[in-house]
Amino acid sequence: MTPEENYHDWLRDAHAMEQQAESMLSKMAGRLEHYPELETRIKQHIDETKQQQVWLNELLDRHGIDNSSFKDVMGKASAFGQAVGGMFTSDEVVKGAISGYVFENFEIASYTSLIGAAEQVGDAEGVRILTQIREQEIAMAEWLYQHLPNVTQQFLLRSAEPGVEAKK
Amino acid sequence: MTPEENYHDWLRDAHAMEQQAESMLSKMAGRLEHYPELETRIKQHIDETKQQQVWLNELLDRHGIDNSSFKDVMGKASAFGQAVGGMFTSDEVVKGAISGYVFENFEIASYTSLIGAAEQVGDAEGVRILTQIREQEIAMAEWLYQHLPNVTQQFLLRSAEPGVEAKK
Repeated sequence: MTPEENYHDWLRDAHAMEQQAESMLSKMAGRLEHYPELETRIKQHIDETKQQQVWLNELLDRHGIDNSSFKDVMGKASAFGQAVGGMFTSDEVVKGAISGYVFENFEIASYTSLIGAAEQVGDAEGVRILTQIREQEIAMAEWLYQHLPNVTQQFLLRSAEPGVEAKK
Repeated sequence: MTPEENYHDWLRDAHAMEQQAESMLSKMAGRLEHYPELETRIKQHIDETKQQQVWLNELLDRHGIDNSSFKDVMGKASAFGQAVGGMFTSDEVVKGAISGYVFENFEIASYTSLIGAAEQVGDAEGVRILTQIREQEIAMAEWLYQHLPNVTQQFLLRSAEPGVEAKK
């Protein structure tokens, strides 16, 4: 395969990954009840994720990559992404926050690899857009990392009180 | 559940997570043929992972947590960890490096949460050991992050050459 062919395949995967991200983040935000700060930050990132899908669509269009092939590639990207995303089904807030952090880092690594590919095929506009998206993923990952000790401690306090819902 | 009970459960999970890390890293290092720098770094981290298991065992002993219960907890930790770890079965070096980075970040998030729990239950020695382990995970994640563009570009070059094995 040529570098361009690999790059185009990975761009399709990135778009599928963002569709999956939106679905998982929405489920997680919908389940949360007692962690409003976490819920607000996740909802903000859902908006960012939708914007990222638009940027990726524009990038795919510029390379003449057919949108109808998304369906085929979803299976492939899903098998990989669902391995991480499956963890979102937990209703336990600590595992959810950890899973969110892990998924963000899956995205960060994917974009880092994609940026390397974009450089190699000489797609300067791709480098710019992919770097811009990666910055939003890094910001989300850092927010979760900073708030994870507090979410954990809130969970432990709620979990110790009889009759208080701690998990979501 | 009391904070201590949750903390002890999560310490068991961390030990199971490191057993899984050792297994996955060993499989990945065993498959690599044409990426010697990556292979060397993974092997170094396998040694660190074994040392981490010893540190975690000492911590579990100090809290009187029975080692025989590992077997029961493995299922629970595995279901969560395998979701990430399953990605290691790919023989494609780029996906492997991404998966490695993702798994390291799963460990970083787990220890960050655990350190928050250790602080809450007043286990200063736990905070010290868990922070020490987390530093090794951060170093491994950063190495993979820094080397991911180069691994990707090597893969693209090899992939474009007829008759050259690129994937492992």
